[in-house]
Amino acid sequence: MRELLEAVADGSLSPAQAEAELRGYVVGEAGRFDAARDQRRGIPEAIFAEGKSAEQVAALAETALETTGRALLTRLSDSQYDALESHLDTAVPDATIDRWSGTVRVTAPDYEQPSLDATVGIATGGTVDGPVADEAAAVCLDAGATVDRVDDIGVAALSRTLDQLERLREADVLIVAAGREGALPTVVAGLVDTPVIGVPVSSGYGHASDGEAALDGMLQSCTVLSVVNIDAGFVAGSQATLIARAIAAARE
Amino acid sequence: MRELLEAVADGSLSPAQAEAELRGYVVGEAGRFDAARDQRRGIPEAIFAEGKSAEQVAALAETALETTGRALLTRLSDSQYDALESHLDTAVPDATIDRWSGTVRVTAPDYEQPSLDATVGIATGGTVDGPVADEAAAVCLDAGATVDRVDDIGVAALSRTLDQLERLREADVLIVAAGREGALPTVVAGLVDTPVIGVPVSSGYGHASDGEAALDGMLQSCTVLSVVNIDAGFVAGSQATLIARAIAAARE
Amino acid sequence: MRELLEAVADGSLSPAQAEAELRGYVVGEAGRFDAARDQRRGIPEAIFAEGKSAEQVAALAETALETTGRALLTRLSDSQYDALESHLDTAVPDATIDRWSGTVRVTAPDYEQPSLDATVGIATGGTVDGPVADEAAAVCLDAGATVDRVDDIGVAALSRTLDQLERLREADVLIVAAGREGALPTVVAGLVDTPVIGVPVSSGYGHASDGEAALDGMLQSCTVLSVVNIDAGFVAGSQATLIARAIAAARE
Amino acid sequence: MRELLEAVADGSLSPAQAEAELRGYVVGEAGRFDAARDQRRGIPEAIFAEGKSAEQVAALAETALETTGRALLTRLSDSQYDALESHLDTAVPDATIDRWSGTVRVTAPDYEQPSLDATVGIATGGTVDGPVADEAAAVCLDAGATVDRVDDIGVAALSRTLDQLERLREADVLIVAAGREGALPTVVAGLVDTPVIGVPVSSGYGHASDGEAALDGMLQSCTVLSVVNIDAGFVAGSQATLIARAIAAARE
Amino acid sequence: MRELLEAVADGSLSPAQAEAELRGYVVGEAGRFDAARDQRRGIPEAIFAEGKSAEQVAALAETALETTGRALLTRLSDSQYDALESHLDTAVPDATIDRWSGTVRVTAPDYEQPSLDATVGIATGGTVDGPVADEAAAVCLDAGATVDRVDDIGVAALSRTLDQLERLREADVLIVAAGREGALPTVVAGLVDTPVIGVPVSSGYGHASDGEAALDGMLQSCTVLSVVNIDAGFVAGSQATLIARAIAAARE
Amino acid sequence: MRELLEAVADGSLSPAQAEAELRGYVVGEAGRFDAARDQRRGIPEAIFAEGKSAEQVAALAETALETTGRALLTRLSDSQYDALESHLDTAVPDATIDRWSGTVRVTAPDYEQPSLDATVGIATGGTVDGPVADEAAAVCLDAGATVDRVDDIGVAALSRTLDQLERLREADVLIVAAGREGALPTVVAGLVDTPVIGVPVSSGYGHASDGEAALDGMLQSCTVLSVVNIDAGFVAGSQATLIARAIAAARE
Amino acid sequence: MRELLEAVADGSLSPAQAEAELRGYVVGEAGRFDAARDQRRGIPEAIFAEGKSAEQVAALAETALETTGRALLTRLSDSQYDALESHLDTAVPDATIDRWSGTVRVTAPDYEQPSLDATVGIATGGTVDGPVADEAAAVCLDAGATVDRVDDIGVAALSRTLDQLERLREADVLIVAAGREGALPTVVAGLVDTPVIGVPVSSGYGHASDGEAALDGMLQSCTVLSVVNIDAGFVAGSQATLIARAIAAARE
Amino acid sequence: MRELLEAVADGSLSPAQAEAELRGYVVGEAGRFDAARDQRRGIPEAIFAEGKSAEQVAALAETALETTGRALLTRLSDSQYDALESHLDTAVPDATIDRWSGTVRVTAPDYEQPSLDATVGIATGGTVDGPVADEAAAVCLDAGATVDRVDDIGVAALSRTLDQLERLREADVLIVAAGREGALPTVVAGLVDTPVIGVPVSSGYGHASDGEAALDGMLQSCTVLSVVNIDAGFVAGSQATLIARAIAAARE
Repeated sequence: MRELLEAVADGSLSPAQAEAELRGYVVGEAGRFDAARDQRRGIPEAIFAEGKSAEQVAALAETALETTGRALLTRLSDSQYDALESHLDTAVPDATIDRWSGTVRVTAPDYEQPSLDATVGIATGGTVDGPVADEAAAVCLDAGATVDRVDDIGVAALSRTLDQLERLREADVLIVAAGREGALPTVVAGLVDTPVIGVPVSSGYGHASDGEAALDGMLQSCTVLSVVNIDAGFVAGSQATLIARAIAAARE
Repeated sequence: MRELLEAVADGSLSPAQAEAELRGYVVGEAGRFDAARDQRRGIPEAIFAEGKSAEQVAALAETALETTGRALLTRLSDSQYDALESHLDTAVPDATIDRWSGTVRVTAPDYEQPSLDATVGIATGGTVDGPVADEAAAVCLDAGATVDRVDDIGVAALSRTLDQLERLREADVLIVAAGREGALPTVVAGLVDTPVIGVPVSSGYGHASDGEAALDGMLQSCTVLSVVNIDAGFVAGSQATLIARAIAAARE
Repeated sequence: MRELLEAVADGSLSPAQAEAELRGYVVGEAGRFDAARDQRRGIPEAIFAEGKSAEQVAALAETALETTGRALLTRLSDSQYDALESHLDTAVPDATIDRWSGTVRVTAPDYEQPSLDATVGIATGGTVDGPVADEAAAVCLDAGATVDRVDDIGVAALSRTLDQLERLREADVLIVAAGREGALPTVVAGLVDTPVIGVPVSSGYGHASDGEAALDGMLQSCTVLSVVNIDAGFVAGSQATLIARAIAAARE
Repeated sequence: MRELLEAVADGSLSPAQAEAELRGYVVGEAGRFDAARDQRRGIPEAIFAEGKSAEQVAALAETALETTGRALLTRLSDSQYDALESHLDTAVPDATIDRWSGTVRVTAPDYEQPSLDATVGIATGGTVDGPVADEAAAVCLDAGATVDRVDDIGVAALSRTLDQLERLREADVLIVAAGREGALPTVVAGLVDTPVIGVPVSSGYGHASDGEAALDGMLQSCTVLSVVNIDAGFVAGSQATLIARAIAAARE
Repeated sequence: MRELLEAVADGSLSPAQAEAELRGYVVGEAGRFDAARDQRRGIPEAIFAEGKSAEQVAALAETALETTGRALLTRLSDSQYDALESHLDTAVPDATIDRWSGTVRVTAPDYEQPSLDATVGIATGGTVDGPVADEAAAVCLDAGATVDRVDDIGVAALSRTLDQLERLREADVLIVAAGREGALPTVVAGLVDTPVIGVPVSSGYGHASDGEAALDGMLQSCTVLSVVNIDAGFVAGSQATLIARAIAAARE
Repeated sequence: MRELLEAVADGSLSPAQAEAELRGYVVGEAGRFDAARDQRRGIPEAIFAEGKSAEQVAALAETALETTGRALLTRLSDSQYDALESHLDTAVPDATIDRWSGTVRVTAPDYEQPSLDATVGIATGGTVDGPVADEAAAVCLDAGATVDRVDDIGVAALSRTLDQLERLREADVLIVAAGREGALPTVVAGLVDTPVIGVPVSSGYGHASDGEAALDGMLQSCTVLSVVNIDAGFVAGSQATLIARAIAAARE
Repeated sequence: MRELLEAVADGSLSPAQAEAELRGYVVGEAGRFDAARDQRRGIPEAIFAEGKSAEQVAALAETALETTGRALLTRLSDSQYDALESHLDTAVPDATIDRWSGTVRVTAPDYEQPSLDATVGIATGGTVDGPVADEAAAVCLDAGATVDRVDDIGVAALSRTLDQLERLREADVLIVAAGREGALPTVVAGLVDTPVIGVPVSSGYGHASDGEAALDGMLQSCTVLSVVNIDAGFVAGSQATLIARAIAAARE
Repeated sequence: MRELLEAVADGSLSPAQAEAELRGYVVGEAGRFDAARDQRRGIPEAIFAEGKSAEQVAALAETALETTGRALLTRLSDSQYDALESHLDTAVPDATIDRWSGTVRVTAPDYEQPSLDATVGIATGGTVDGPVADEAAAVCLDAGATVDRVDDIGVAALSRTLDQLERLREADVLIVAAGREGALPTVVAGLVDTPVIGVPVSSGYGHASDGEAALDGMLQSCTVLSVVNIDAGFVAGSQATLIARAIAAARE
C-alpha cells in the first residue's frame, strides 16, 4: 500500500492506476471502469458505446488504456469513432487503433499482446453476418487466440457448407453466426464434435425478422448448441475465448 | 330441374342429394355441408372435428357420404371417433372406415376412388411429426394421388437426409413436416427442383415451442418454401393435391 | 476438366465461369454466388440487396451476369440502384436493365430468355400491394412464365373481386397479395380450383399491422392456401414458378 | 325515503330492494350487485360466472331476481348451472330458467318482459361459433329486441354468404361472429349499410389461434367494423342492444 | 343505358361518371375507386393516403370529386397534401379544401352537403388524442351529422370527466379516444346509456405502448364498449355515422 | 459463539436455530431457509409452494417455525395443505394454522405477534380478485399492520368506488387489485394522496387476458402507481408492509 | 366566491388563478391543467411533452407557473426546450429554468420551495441509465425531498454494488434504475430493509431489448420490489416522493 | 464388409449392430437411431420421450442399448417409465436403470463407463430448479465427467451465493439453472473466470413466466453467458460435456 502511494507520489503510477490496483475499478466522469475484470473474469471489460455520448466513450477508452494497456469498444457509430480518434490523437498520441465495422481496438505502444494456444473457428451464413462475426473475432484476437474465419457457407447451397467441414472440425471451439432462419449452426453442430456457439443475426424481413426466427431456431435446435443474444458477437467471442483459455491452460 | 324433382319423388335421389345438386350445399342440423366444393375448388370439403359435438360430426359425415360418396374427417378425438363409428354402424352399415391417428376416411360401398397420375412426397424430421404427415397423406390418397412417405430424416444426423435425396427428387411435389427448429424443409428445398411445402409441427418445449420456431424459420427460410399453419397437415395435403392435379391434368 | 482449363487458358472462359462449372459456386469478395442453383433448384439465385453495401451488390450482379447471363436483384434502395447502374455502365456496358420498384433484372446481350408454357396469375387487394406483386412478377418473367396481373380487387367492394373471377380461374397457379386483414386470398381460394399462394403485405397501422394480421389470417384461412412471409414477393414468385415449371414440363 | 322504510317495515319491500332503490347497488356476501345499471346504462347487469364459486353465482342470481325481476348469467360451467338450479328450486321455486350453452336467463313469474321495436341480425361463419352467438342473442332477447339468426355462412363457400344477403340487409344492426381468419364480418360489412359488430371466436389451431387471427383481421379490416374481444358474445349483444334501443326510441 | 351513353357522347357526363354509374367503380391508374360505396355501404369511400404516392393520392381525389362530388382523404403527409393542393389548383380550381391534421376533405362547388338529424359526441382523454378525434369528426361532418367535441377529460383528474357527464349523455352515440391505459371509455361507458365506441390512441412509452395497453384495456373493459383499431379515427367515425344514420332514419 | 454451541449442547437451542444464528440461513433437505431475512430485509421469508413437493413444503414450514416462530406459505394446493396439516399434527402439534384460499400462516404457541402502527388499505375491483387480496392481507397481518379491506368497488359502477373514497384516503398505503382492464388503481390513485400499489389479477378471457391487459394498463397509467406482477399479492403485501414499517418507525 | 371575483376584478388574481381556485383545473388552448393535483394527489401535475406541439408545451408551462408557482416538464426534445425558453423569456422573464437531459423545471421568482424531511436514494446500474434517474430525481427535488444518487453500480462487477451498501441502507426509500437484464434492483432489494422501486431502462439490443427483459425480471424478482414502466423515471420519482411524504409527515 | 456380414451370419453381431456400423444409424419401427452420434458429435444420441408413445420409447431404448451399450432418456412421464421398465425386464433383463425425475439412464451389464478428467459445476437458484439440473447432470455423468452440484443459492439471500464462490471457481465449466428473474447466472458469471452456461427454468407466474423472464435476462446479461432454451438441462449438460471433453483431451 505504502509502496503504491509512493509510486503515485513520484509519478511512476497515475492516480487511476493506483485506484484500479486498490479497488479493482476506477471511478471517472463516465462511470466506473472495471479494471480488474480480466483477473476476475478472464476477459477484460469492453466499452459498449451504444447509448453513451462520444465524450463518455472517449473518456472510458482513455481510462482502459491507462489501467489495462488496451481498450476494446463495440457498437461505435461513425461519429463516436471520429470523436474517439481525435481525442486519442492528443491524449494518447502513440496508441494503435484497429477498426472492424463498429468494433474498435486501441493498444498502448508498450502493450504486451497476450497469446493463447487455441483456435476459435468463426463461420457465417451470408455476407450480412459479417459485422457480427467481426465483433466476435475482435474479442478473440484481443485475448490472443487464433481465429479461423469461414464466410458465406449458408445451407441454401449445402455444398458450400460441406466443402468447409474439415476446416470447421479443426477448431477448438466454433462460433456460427446466421440470420434469417438460422439453420447453419444446427447443421454444423450435427457434424462436428466441438462446442458450437450460435449467434442469431438481425437480418431478414417480415414475421420473426430482426433475428427472432434465428434465435428461436437455435434455442429449439435438435442438435447441441448454446446461444447468445441476437447480434451479440461480443458475448459469443468472449464465451469462446473463455473456452479457448481453459483448453490452452490444460495444454500447458 | 323437373327431372331432379321427379327423381326425389320416386326415391332415386334423396332430398339432400337434390339440394346439393341445386344449391351446391346442404343445410342440416350441424351446418351447411359444401357438397360442390370438389367441382369448384378441386378438393372436396373435409369435416374439421375440433369444437364440434360428436353428434354434429356424425351427422356431417353422413351428409358427406350421401352427397359425395366419401367423407374425410380431421382432428377427431377418440370419443368423437367412437360416436362416429357407432352412428355409421346403423346409418350406413356397409361403409368402409380408415383411420390414421386423428384422421378418418369413410367411403360408401359404391364409391369410385378417383386416380391422379402424380406423386406427392411426404417427409418428416422425426417420429413425433408422424400424425401431421398422416393427415396430409390422407388428403392426397383421398384424391387418388400416389404418396411416397419418408420418415425421420431430420438434419441432426445429416446423412439420414442425404441418403434419401434421390427419392425426394422423384416426387412431383414435396411436403416436409418438421418441429423444433424446423430446418429440414430448408435443407431439402435447397437440394430439389420441385415445389416444397413446409409444415411446422408443434413439438419441442421452452421459448418458441408449439411449432412457433419452426413456423418462423420456414417463413424466414433462405431457400424457396411455401408454408402452412402449424400442424396443418390437411392444408399441406390439399395444396399438394391441387398442384398434383394440375400436373396430372397437363400429363393427359 | 482439361478442356475447361484450356478454355480458361485461351480466354474463352473466365476463371469465374470455370469455378462455377467446377464447384457450382463462385467465391468473390462479396460472398459465394451459387451459380448452379438453377440446375439444382429450378430457380437461379437472386441477389437480396438489403444489408449489403452498394459495392457488394454490384460485384455480385456482375458475377451473376458472367456466370448465368442474367442477374435478378431484390429490395434495392435507390442508392444501391444508382451504384449498380454506374458499375454496369463500365463493367458490362451492353447489359439491359429492367426495374420495377425495388426489383431489378439485368441481362447480358447474348442471354437467351427461357420460356415456360404456363401462366401465373397475380392479384392484389389494393394499390399499396403493387411493389410486392412486382417482385413476384419479376421472378416469373425471369423464368419465362406468362404473368397475368389483376390489381386492386380487394373484398371491401366484392364486385371488383367477382368481376375478375373468370380471369383468375384461367391461370395455372395464383399469387394473391393483400395487406390489412388479408381476406382476398381466402375469398379467391374458395372460388378457383388452382393452387393459391398468399402473400401478406405490410400495410395498415395499429395492432397487428406490418402485415401480421394478414399473415395470421392466411395461416388460419378456412380455405386451402399456402403462404410465404410478409412482403416476400420473391418467394411467392419462385414457388409459383416451380409449380408452373412442373406443369409446363408435364405439358411437353 | 320514509315511504320506502315503511314498505320495508311492512314487508312489501325486501331490505335488498330498498337498498337497491336507495344506493343503486346491493351489498351481499358475493359482492355488490349493480341494480341500477339498467336505468343508468340501458342494459341490466349480467352475472359473469367464470372465477366465481357456485355459491357466489347462485347468491348473485337471487339478488338480481329480487331487485330487477330477472337474472342473466354468462359462461356458466355445468356444475355452476346445477348448483344454480338447485338453489333456485328452493329460493325462488316459481322462476323460469332458460339455457343456451353457457348462458342462462332466469325470470321471476311476475316479470314483465320489455319489448324493443328493432331487429338485431346475428350471423356466424361456422358451427363452432354457435355458443358465442347464443350468448349475444340472449342479451338481445333479454332486452326485448327481435333477433334474426343466420348460421354457418362462412366465406369458404361464398354462395352461402351471398344467398343470405337480403336477410342480413334487413336487420337494424348486425353481429357477425367468426373464428379462424375471421373474414366473414369484413365481407358482410362491405355489402350492407347497417352498423356491423365483429366478434372473433376462439377456434382454430396453430399460430394466432384462440381467436387472435380473427381479432387481428377485424381490427385491420378494410371495411368499417367495430369489434369486441374474442368470444365476447355478451359485449356484442349489449352493444347491439344499445344501438337497437336508440333506433327503437327514435321510431316512437 | 342508351341515355347514359348519349350523355357521355354529348359531354354532359364524363366517362368516369358513366363507368361509376354502370359498374359501381371506376378503374384508373391509381386503382379502382368504389364510387357506389355510399349507396351500398352508407358511407362513401375515403382515400387512405399511407403507402400511396402523391400522384396516386391526387388522381384518386380527382376521381372521387368527379364521381361523388367530394373526397375525403386520411393520413396524408405534408408532402402528399402539398401535391394534392397543387394538383387540384389546376384540375378542379374551384374546389374547397378543409384540413384537420392528416385528414383532408375536398368538395366540388356544386356539392350538396348531406344532413343527418343526429349527434355524435367525441371525447378525448388528453391533448395528444386530438388528431385521431379530428379524423373521426371529419367523417361524421362529411356525412352531415352534428359533432359535439369534448377534449382533455382523462380520468387522472376525475372531476374533469364528471363535469362533462350531462353533455356526454346528450349525444346519440359516443366516440371516446384515449391513449396510455385507455381508461376513459370504460369510465364513460359506465355512466351513459348510449353506444360507446372506444378508440385506442398510440401515445405513451415503454411496455405496451403505441396504444396496445389502451386497446387491451378497451377489449377487456368491464363495461360495454365496442372498439376499433389503434388510431382508427376513420373507422370510429364511420361506425358512429352508420349508427347516427339509422337513428336519423328512424326519426323521420 | 462458544455460548451458542453450549446452548446447542445443553439442548436449549436446536442445531437449526444455531445454524440460523451463525450463518443466517439453514440448509435442509428442501433447500436453504433464509432465517435472517426479517432482520436484513424487514420481511421474513415466505414459502412459495408452487413447484415444490408436499414434503418439501412441510419440511420448510417446520424449519421456519423452529427458527423464526412462524411460517407463511403462499399458493398452496389443497393436497399440499393437507400434507402440511398432517405433518404439523405430529411435528409441531401445538401450532396454530390460519388459511385464506391458497395462503396459510402457522404460528408457534409462544410466538409473539409483532405490531405495527400503520394501516394498509386493500381494495378489489370484483369478487374474483378476492384470493389475491387475501394473499396480500396475510403478509400485512403477519407483520402486525392494520388491514382495511374494501371489496368489489370496480369502476363499471363508479358510485361504488366514490362511496368508499373517504375510507381509502385514511389508509397509510393502498393496495388496489383488479383484473380485466384494471382501471380501478388508476381511478383511485387520481383521488388519494397516499402511495398506491396496483396488483393486476388474472381474470377475463380473450385477447390480453390472464391479467396482461390489467398489467399493461397499470404500467401505462396516467396517474402515479407502482405495480407488481400479475396475481402477486405476496409482493404487494410485502412492499406495503415495508412502507408501513417506515411510517410506523417515523411515528415512534 | 365574491372575494375571489373581486380579486380578479382588481387584478390581484388572474382569471386562470381564479378558475384554478374554483374548479381545480384551468381550461386553456392546450388542454385542462390540473392545478389542484398537489392538494388532491400529493404531487403537482407535470407536463409530459411527448406528442405535444412546442406551443402547447409552452402554454401549459405558463399556466402551471401562474397557478402553482412552478412547472415540471418531462421528455422534452431540444426544439421543444428552445421554444419553451424563448416563450418564457418574454412571458415570465424572471423565471428560473433548470434542465437535466429531457427534464426541465421552471420556478417563479417568488416560489417557495417546499421541504420534506426524508431521503430518496437513487441508484443506477450503468452510465446509460442516467437520464431516467435524472427524471426521477427532478420530481423528488421538486417536492423538497433529499436525493442521494449512486451511479454505475451494476452487478457485473459486484464489488461496485457491495461497496455502496451502507449508503443505500440509509435512504428512506430507494429507486433503482437498470437496463439490460435489470438484476440490480433484485440484488439491492435482497440486502436492504427499505421499500425499493425498480425502474427498467430501455437499453440493450436483440431479443427482449428496449427494457422488456429488465421489466420482466423485475416483475418476476425473487425479492420484494414494486415496479414502474420502462424509462418511467417520473412515476418512480413520484411514488418515492409519496412514500417520503408519508414518512416525513409521521416524523413531524 | 465381408467380415461384418460373417459376424451377422454367425450371430456374433446383431443385424442392428451391423446396420449401425455400416450406415451410422439404425432404422426401426420407432424411427432412425443415430448410433454414430458419439463418434461424430462427441455426445451419444439421447431419446427425447415427449410426444412419443411408450412403445416407441422402449423400442428406441432397446436399440440404443444394443448398438451403443447405454441409453439416456429425457422427459419421461411416469407411464412411459413404467412401460420402459417392464419392456427391459424381458428384453434386456440384466440392464441397470438409474432415474432422476424425468431422466433415465440404462446401461448394459458389459458397458464400459467412459471417464473424463474434468469437472462440471452445476448450481441452482432454488428448490424447483432441481429436475432441470438433474437432467444436465445425467448427461455429464453419462459421459464420465465429474459433477459438482450446489443447490439453492439464489441471489435473494446473496450470502448463500457468495458462501459457495470458491467451490464454483474450481469447476472447469459451470451450468447455472435459475427460474423467475434468472439473475443467478449473471451474478455468478461476474465472479468466476470459467465459461458459464445459463439455463432458464420454467418457474414463476404472471407476466413473462414459464421461464421467459429468465431467458430474456440471461440473453441480455451484462456479463458473459451463453444460454440454452428454457428447461433444456439436456442441452446445457451436453454443451458442458463437449467443453469438458476438450479440456480433458488437452490435459492428456
